Amino acid sequence: MQRNLFTEDHEAFRELAREFVEKEVVPHYPDWEKGGRMPREVFEQMGSLGMLGMAIPEEYGGGGEPDYRYNVVLQEEAAKALVTLSTVRTQLEVILPYFLHYANDEQRQRWFPGLAAGTLLTAVAMTEPGTGSDLAGMRTTAVRDGDDYIVNGAKTFITGGMQADLVITVARTSTDPDNRRRGLTLLVVEDGMPGFTRGRELEKMGCKVQDTAELSFVDVRVPAANVLGEVDEAFGYLGHNLPQERLTVAVGSVAQARSAIHAAIDYTKDRKAFGTPVASFQNTKFELAACSTEVEAAQAMLDRAVQLHVDGELSPADAARTKLFCTEMQQRVIDRCLQLFGGYGYMMEYPIARLYTDARVARIYAGTSEVMKVMIAKSLGL
Amino acid sequence: MQRNLFTEDHEAFRELAREFVEKEVVPHYPDWEKGGRMPREVFEQMGSLGMLGMAIPEEYGGGGEPDYRYNVVLQEEAAKALVTLSTVRTQLEVILPYFLHYANDEQRQRWFPGLAAGTLLTAVAMTEPGTGSDLAGMRTTAVRDGDDYIVNGAKTFITGGMQADLVITVARTSTDPDNRRRGLTLLVVEDGMPGFTRGRELEKMGCKVQDTAELSFVDVRVPAANVLGEVDEAFGYLGHNLPQERLTVAVGSVAQARSAIHAAIDYTKDRKAFGTPVASFQNTKFELAACSTEVEAAQAMLDRAVQLHVDGELSPADAARTKLFCTEMQQRVIDRCLQLFGGYGYMMEYPIARLYTDARVARIYAGTSEVMKVMIAKSLGL
Amino acid sequence: MQRNLFTEDHEAFRELAREFVEKEVVPHYPDWEKGGRMPREVFEQMGSLGMLGMAIPEEYGGGGEPDYRYNVVLQEEAAKALVTLSTVRTQLEVILPYFLHYANDEQRQRWFPGLAAGTLLTAVAMTEPGTGSDLAGMRTTAVRDGDDYIVNGAKTFITGGMQADLVITVARTSTDPDNRRRGLTLLVVEDGMPGFTRGRELEKMGCKVQDTAELSFVDVRVPAANVLGEVDEAFGYLGHNLPQERLTVAVGSVAQARSAIHAAIDYTKDRKAFGTPVASFQNTKFELAACSTEVEAAQAMLDRAVQLHVDGELSPADAARTKLFCTEMQQRVIDRCLQLFGGYGYMMEYPIARLYTDARVARIYAGTSEVMKVMIAKSLGL
Amino acid sequence: MQRNLFTEDHEAFRELAREFVEKEVVPHYPDWEKGGRMPREVFEQMGSLGMLGMAIPEEYGGGGEPDYRYNVVLQEEAAKALVTLSTVRTQLEVILPYFLHYANDEQRQRWFPGLAAGTLLTAVAMTEPGTGSDLAGMRTTAVRDGDDYIVNGAKTFITGGMQADLVITVARTSTDPDNRRRGLTLLVVEDGMPGFTRGRELEKMGCKVQDTAELSFVDVRVPAANVLGEVDEAFGYLGHNLPQERLTVAVGSVAQARSAIHAAIDYTKDRKAFGTPVASFQNTKFELAACSTEVEAAQAMLDRAVQLHVDGELSPADAARTKLFCTEMQQRVIDRCLQLFGGYGYMMEYPIARLYTDARVARIYAGTSEVMKVMIAKSLGL
Repeated sequence: MQRNLFTEDHEAFRELAREFVEKEVVPHYPDWEKGGRMPREVFEQMGSLGMLGMAIPEEYGGGGEPDYRYNVVLQEEAAKALVTLSTVRTQLEVILPYFLHYANDEQRQRWFPGLAAGTLLTAVAMTEPGTGSDLAGMRTTAVRDGDDYIVNGAKTFITGGMQADLVITVARTSTDPDNRRRGLTLLVVEDGMPGFTRGRELEKMGCKVQDTAELSFVDVRVPAANVLGEVDEAFGYLGHNLPQERLTVAVGSVAQARSAIHAAIDYTKDRKAFGTPVASFQNTKFELAACSTEVEAAQAMLDRAVQLHVDGELSPADAARTKLFCTEMQQRVIDRCLQLFGGYGYMMEYPIARLYTDARVARIYAGTSEVMKVMIAKSLGL
Repeated sequence: MQRNLFTEDHEAFRELAREFVEKEVVPHYPDWEKGGRMPREVFEQMGSLGMLGMAIPEEYGGGGEPDYRYNVVLQEEAAKALVTLSTVRTQLEVILPYFLHYANDEQRQRWFPGLAAGTLLTAVAMTEPGTGSDLAGMRTTAVRDGDDYIVNGAKTFITGGMQADLVITVARTSTDPDNRRRGLTLLVVEDGMPGFTRGRELEKMGCKVQDTAELSFVDVRVPAANVLGEVDEAFGYLGHNLPQERLTVAVGSVAQARSAIHAAIDYTKDRKAFGTPVASFQNTKFELAACSTEVEAAQAMLDRAVQLHVDGELSPADAARTKLFCTEMQQRVIDRCLQLFGGYGYMMEYPIARLYTDARVARIYAGTSEVMKVMIAKSLGL
Repeated sequence: MQRNLFTEDHEAFRELAREFVEKEVVPHYPDWEKGGRMPREVFEQMGSLGMLGMAIPEEYGGGGEPDYRYNVVLQEEAAKALVTLSTVRTQLEVILPYFLHYANDEQRQRWFPGLAAGTLLTAVAMTEPGTGSDLAGMRTTAVRDGDDYIVNGAKTFITGGMQADLVITVARTSTDPDNRRRGLTLLVVEDGMPGFTRGRELEKMGCKVQDTAELSFVDVRVPAANVLGEVDEAFGYLGHNLPQERLTVAVGSVAQARSAIHAAIDYTKDRKAFGTPVASFQNTKFELAACSTEVEAAQAMLDRAVQLHVDGELSPADAARTKLFCTEMQQRVIDRCLQLFGGYGYMMEYPIARLYTDARVARIYAGTSEVMKVMIAKSLGL
Repeated sequence: MQRNLFTEDHEAFRELAREFVEKEVVPHYPDWEKGGRMPREVFEQMGSLGMLGMAIPEEYGGGGEPDYRYNVVLQEEAAKALVTLSTVRTQLEVILPYFLHYANDEQRQRWFPGLAAGTLLTAVAMTEPGTGSDLAGMRTTAVRDGDDYIVNGAKTFITGGMQADLVITVARTSTDPDNRRRGLTLLVVEDGMPGFTRGRELEKMGCKVQDTAELSFVDVRVPAANVLGEVDEAFGYLGHNLPQERLTVAVGSVAQARSAIHAAIDYTKDRKAFGTPVASFQNTKFELAACSTEVEAAQAMLDRAVQLHVDGELSPADAARTKLFCTEMQQRVIDRCLQLFGGYGYMMEYPIARLYTDARVARIYAGTSEVMKVMIAKSLGL
């Protein structure tokens, strides 16, 4: 269904992205899968092409165009080529907003050029072993000591944690018995700080070109100048960006589901069963028609949500609805497409198998489908 | 999710519609259900309020505003009040387009004032016993005889057939062995023409305020002046309005699913099970959150499709996708909502039961879900 | 899939049942639907054929064969002919067990002959307006007064309430603040007792050959001799028969789903679309294959549960599982079969439409699907 | 639900199997996953415990108990411990039947002792690149040359192909223009025969403790004494064992789905979210109740099918129904269970993630769900 989300500027950026993906990502992707990450130089390449700094003010080497739709374009073009851009999505859509909203002038000068250039890679360390989404139950601490904070604790499921130069770490700086939500602070822990170590790299079902790490903090001395935003106020910051974080998952879900359909159409037209192209069976046609219908519904919902987000009017509940629908749709559609590949669909050399294992996390991260339902129910007055 | 489809004019019309529905429809609806139709005077009332002639040129007493969104508003307001407006939907969205597109000047003068005033009720007689959607297999004939055509045949499943003053009848006027699609003509058969009789009124599962008839034509003499459009060319006409016909079903589906959710929220907040409001169970919350999510996805898709339709850019395949998704969604959602009513959901005095039985036809009429899939698959090159 | 549940005796009974249904039920069923019940004389006819008293001891005119499988056969044969036997199912499988278990000798002599002969029709009055499944919240009272009890209260959703000669009424005879479950008693209220009146007959979505009534009790004087079982102990009695009550719903669900498939096979072989039998489309084949698979899974589960029930070893949780699976399956299957009928599926003259509206209650009565899940979860230690 | 499939002998064997799995499989499983197979010595260990030869006549060192239920027990005990027994399932249930049915006396003496002892590992090479399930389109050839056949061709998707000592290879020995199904022959190709090479080991989504290979045959000289059964008659042989092959997939599906539920119950009881055990949320209870219901339905169907198979009365269509239902159920159930693990469900160190990726192939191999539907539809006369 004809879309109405993008301007000519976005489409020009799309051309750039498409070309980059085709030349610099697709040929190397199998290697990156084995290595478990995208090499640093590719981040730098993207930086030099202006793809990482669109939202960063021009004075720091960015594009000065804080328009979320550029991120949408980037994800779509990667998905179209049946790859991902590793942690770029997290960097741009989950982490960068913290810097953009809460960095002070000095921090901007220190970090923004590197963020725009792709020389500074980042992660956000929120989840702890055993606490899951329950931020208020967080046990990592940061205790003031002169001009520094001493950070102690452990984090897990940290996307990009192995490669990150800067880790926005959520720690408890004070305890307010009347308000469990107060007392959390964001501290930027830097690679090389004594006591900061990366633990195991977790083996995931999919999302192989993206590391997921355990991080450990033992008496890490972090200068107070690395506090992002106000001390004790991080709880609100973390919630503030959640709608965009959820939207961004949905963007990937829709784009990947759409790619699965294209892959299945190509495959079934080519492949014969009992002397007939698989595409000519009514079951194939009906399955793909149903998938295409679901994708278009999701796309319409998503595009509407993105527009509202761009206009600053997307409610958290609608972000939750969009994530819930798009991710559940993604799994249904990719599963049905994979089935049309028969045995080949189970072989990792076929991208459909990768799309399938990549997809399973979408209903879980950035808030599970169940958490989404809790939020949506509240918005219904339930 | 915030919508962006309507202007102030539509919202003003919405007020009018809402008031009308509340005062003139809701109190009488149970009686109409028993009688199987909406009384003629209510059509006339709607006519006098300008609700039936929005799209008809002002010179014939209409509003001169051929904007499909007024129809959307009308359906939405009826659904919001848990009623329907009987055959008004068919009249405005399925039949009126034939008159608007194909009536010549003389016909316009004869019929448009009555159509705008609600004094002329209409039906379109397409389906025949045993042919279903296969127009080319139609067996009703119209044979030229002087200035008249002699019509013979039988039609079934004719919505509004019992009340109609004018029946647009599809008949075969010639046979072209090379082109099964040529040779069909639209003739307006009028109430009272000798040989034109209404047969049985079919008993349907739902949609009780709307008659469905069998019609019989035995040597009905129809003046050639009653031919709508060109002789032999009706096949194209019938296809031309299908996207709107499908869209209109989707409009009802989304509006009714949304109403079901509201009804279920009200009911479960009120109703206690084992001393606790049903709304406070997590299952209730999750079911309604899932339903709300589906409705918002469908609404976004539908609103996008409506906008494209208003802009003259809706493809038949996208109309098919929209109908398929919205009607399947309607059934899933209403079924889940009904379940929350327990035993009361099975009692016809609760509107949810009526919504449920009304809904089942949406996946069937105006082209079954299977026919939609055939069309969608074609658009995918399958 | 070949079954192994029945002996030759059951199959002989099946022949009898089949013949009876074909001759005495099928031809009159449309009339009964209009009338809302099965005439009393048909119950008597069934009684005289020994079909109502299989489980009643021979000395009272019964068959002396308390084998649940005869009930299974009866329901299956009715479903096979696309009809139901009205309240016979409730009478035999829900109500009769109370009489068989709790009637004393005098009561046996008074009532068993009539129950066996089909001259005494029955109902059980449990549900009250506003209490639903919460027995402990029941407000109908029975106060001892000499040799009688004075019963006051209101009941709703009473299957067979309009026709019943004997109504097993659950009333509160005492209040134990420490045990909400104590203090309920079964009293047999008889037709004609002053103060006992039938209220409205409720209009249901389906199950039209079976009345559902509201009953009112105003100072109804019921002799203590009509107390069934022990005073104050009914709570346990009501729970005791629930597994069978749930099984019996499942029996109907599976049999009706199976019939829907047969009806759809016949219809689609006969009916042509675009010149080809609908049965020859791959979609039709796959839909029916999927339906048949579901029915066979349900049948295997059900047959196993029936065997365990006959052996006295069916757990309440397994009865709940069986009901849950079979009723949900029934709806999925009948819905898919109906879709294959196109517009005809929406017409009440096609039995598939009746199967569809009949089915919707199965997931609700005898405990909703949600109540089943609560029970099953408990059995899992959750 | 209480089962009735096994005797005391089976339960004794179950004890043996359980102990073996716990001691010899579970501790080493992570290593085997990395290595991609189960070491040969473990096969030999199983052989020496009598677990591989139950069906082989005692004179060749087997157990002389060709009772399919021992295989069921073996798979169930592996699944219960959240592991698999690598290619043992294929060896016992898919390949051994060919040897048992078609080996002549000389072959029995040559191969049965090794098969029983676990020193001879096997594979069956049927599928070719590009032909899928279309046996008749097979292009591998075997041409008679003196006392030998010269085999040429390529096979793919061969389970156990890397480890196999004996590969039952399907090759075309003649062409009958009137009967595409004639002319296929089974030849036992032995490890080390010149021209027989293993190609790539295919990387699969799951089933990591089980290799899947490409095999290549270039002028492989195979003695005629290695022909299994009659020349040209293999087509029938291949079909003959399909019901058991499908049943065996279903056995694994049900056992693994059941294990997923147990794992999810344990996890959710242990794991807290927002201070409450996840198991105490109604959603968790309802999800697990629904899963448990599905597993019990599948189990009942499967046990019935196994009993019919043991009795020699299982129809191919019922085997297809059983496979279709059980494998589709497996995926639904494991997916729902995984969701309850949140982020941990996506980590390969949690067995639920492995169950998930293992499961996806079940709807594909031994005939896809679509092939099952084709067979079932035929049995319905469609």
